[in-house]
Amino acid sequence: MELHALTPATEINLRIEAIRTCMASQGIDAILLTDNANIFYTLGRVVNGWTYIPAAGTPIYFIRRPEGLKGDNVCHIHKPELIPAELAKLGYTLPTKLGLELGTTPYLTIERLKAIFPDAEIADASAVMRCMRAVKTDFELDLLRQSGIKHERVYQRIPHLFHTGMSDIELQIEIERVARLEGCLGQFRISGESMELFMANVLAGNNADNPTPYDFAMGGAGLDPSLPVGADGSIITPGMAVMVDANGNFTGYMTDMTRVYSCGELSSEAVKAHQCSIDICRELEKIGRPGTKASDMYARAVEIVRAAGLERHFMGYTQKAGFIGHGVGIEINELPVIAPRSRDILAEHNVLALEPKFVVPGVGAVGIENTYIVTTDGLEKITNSPEEIIDLQ
Amino acid sequence: MELHALTPATEINLRIEAIRTCMASQGIDAILLTDNANIFYTLGRVVNGWTYIPAAGTPIYFIRRPEGLKGDNVCHIHKPELIPAELAKLGYTLPTKLGLELGTTPYLTIERLKAIFPDAEIADASAVMRCMRAVKTDFELDLLRQSGIKHERVYQRIPHLFHTGMSDIELQIEIERVARLEGCLGQFRISGESMELFMANVLAGNNADNPTPYDFAMGGAGLDPSLPVGADGSIITPGMAVMVDANGNFTGYMTDMTRVYSCGELSSEAVKAHQCSIDICRELEKIGRPGTKASDMYARAVEIVRAAGLERHFMGYTQKAGFIGHGVGIEINELPVIAPRSRDILAEHNVLALEPKFVVPGVGAVGIENTYIVTTDGLEKITNSPEEIIDLQ
Repeated sequence: MELHALTPATEINLRIEAIRTCMASQGIDAILLTDNANIFYTLGRVVNGWTYIPAAGTPIYFIRRPEGLKGDNVCHIHKPELIPAELAKLGYTLPTKLGLELGTTPYLTIERLKAIFPDAEIADASAVMRCMRAVKTDFELDLLRQSGIKHERVYQRIPHLFHTGMSDIELQIEIERVARLEGCLGQFRISGESMELFMANVLAGNNADNPTPYDFAMGGAGLDPSLPVGADGSIITPGMAVMVDANGNFTGYMTDMTRVYSCGELSSEAVKAHQCSIDICRELEKIGRPGTKASDMYARAVEIVRAAGLERHFMGYTQKAGFIGHGVGIEINELPVIAPRSRDILAEHNVLALEPKFVVPGVGAVGIENTYIVTTDGLEKITNSPEEIIDLQ
Repeated sequence: MELHALTPATEINLRIEAIRTCMASQGIDAILLTDNANIFYTLGRVVNGWTYIPAAGTPIYFIRRPEGLKGDNVCHIHKPELIPAELAKLGYTLPTKLGLELGTTPYLTIERLKAIFPDAEIADASAVMRCMRAVKTDFELDLLRQSGIKHERVYQRIPHLFHTGMSDIELQIEIERVARLEGCLGQFRISGESMELFMANVLAGNNADNPTPYDFAMGGAGLDPSLPVGADGSIITPGMAVMVDANGNFTGYMTDMTRVYSCGELSSEAVKAHQCSIDICRELEKIGRPGTKASDMYARAVEIVRAAGLERHFMGYTQKAGFIGHGVGIEINELPVIAPRSRDILAEHNVLALEPKFVVPGVGAVGIENTYIVTTDGLEKITNSPEEIIDLQ
């Protein structure tokens, strides 16, 4: 097996150097990463183990599984307690300030790691990594563009999957199949253990107004109380909007895209709200560039919504989401967050999804979502499917 | 919205009382649960929030989302810092020993909760809940049996999904679709954040011998280094075994089942190993009952494997799994664990999956997996699909 899988060593080195710059600014001597997303980011493939990045010297990949992975910087161990002795053998001094993923790793696991490095001050590496991963490299942008192209191909097929009398979940299942045949990996990586969604959120009619426990832009009752989100088995009938927000993980990097389909004509209010979503996207595409405040983007969206008199419907009706956009990449909820009190400022090569959406009772959810790369020339859209409401009939 | 969704209040009370008995044995005054699996267990539906169970008095459901959920014991809050004041209003004294889910909740979240209860000694509630959930109630057993019946229906369809020239992933996608149409929720709940798998593991031919980072019984290279497990796009050709281990989550409770298909005849060694797996299951069905040591079940399986001269192939060839069975329920990796050094002892109404499997180079993976309820009369199988190798041609 290759150490870095499909990611070139030069790319890995680029990421490691960027992480080190961030570590240095916080006086962190070394970080030890074990979260799958961060292992994938620092090694180019998922393993069960730990990436150890010292301030100086070669990073070491401590791998528990798979066995047999070969490489200059690989050290196979069966438990983390062996790390200090292995570091000593390699001539490394132990860190005085060690970064661990305090925001994502369970409490007992962190306590175990702390006991292995009893003399080290512990700092949070999860925040460091979230900041790092928010700015994509050219290699990552290429993977995101590839996901976007395949994502578009799936959406192109959606009108052909519908038949009269179909339920929301039946339509979703056919979309899932087409996406999987197009190469979608299915896996929907989300930071934060309480977020769950299977593959897609397809909302038909009033089900869009059912609130969920999850922090997604839209809701839906779901099919079972163990997973109360999304399609609930509603039959798609004339006058309904059908919102499709389907997983775009084709490369380990996810694009996020939403489009709306209709069963016959929708109410004029729903059509107006959908157009308002498109208008907001066009406007945010103009103002979004390196240096733009996320909170300003949110505020501008709200201005447009107010001017259209659509506040009551914006980002939900019965329950409202508190954001209109979020970073995407290895995980679906990366930085920056486009929300009223966000302190994030757009940086070059951030990748973000904007999803100004509306719920219109009696019709359903309308609005679009696209994924963008932040460039010095503005936002580059990488999910280019047609944005108008497409009639399925 | 109903508070307990589909779970009757009497059932919830039964579970709460059992948890209290366990709390009392450890001197725990109260537990505060936030893991989705434990919220579902104690409330009957997933919410974003916390279940607070005091040693005496009514449990309180502190709910952040969804808004609008009504019930006698519901208290809507937007942050956990409000919990102590709400408890005081309800006349509860604060706990002196508080159980939190230290094994699953991130470090910083636990530190935040500790700061909210500064005077409380903190104990681990995740281990308590794992023990509790390992013994299923009649209500849970019924949901598991229902999942088993639907799971069987999906497997019945598998031979009809195959066509010559198909790849492993193409077959998997058709199985996913049939499972979803049968009502499979898709979501594969796993305890431990580093475990990932999408919907099913379909292994054709030698791909079964590719080791993965994950702690599953079998491996597979997968389609992408971000998710290196399972189908790798291999074309299914004559002489190959095709092992199908597909998600059985139809009710929020998962059954686990594996069957093997072939493309034409398999080698006599593979046929022998498959029969050995069936023989092991028959034998373990006889000895498994309340009081049986998990380690004794493992040892008995190994004896049978040795007698058949199949040790080299047992539970993997290049990389071996360290267990042959595991509890199932809301999560796929519950207690008890059937492994050589397991200290678990079977209890009445444990539900466990047994999966003695073999990898035969040049052929692939063979062997079966079934889900069982531990009863005083022995193991009751709830995944009753035919166990012989089925020829797809």
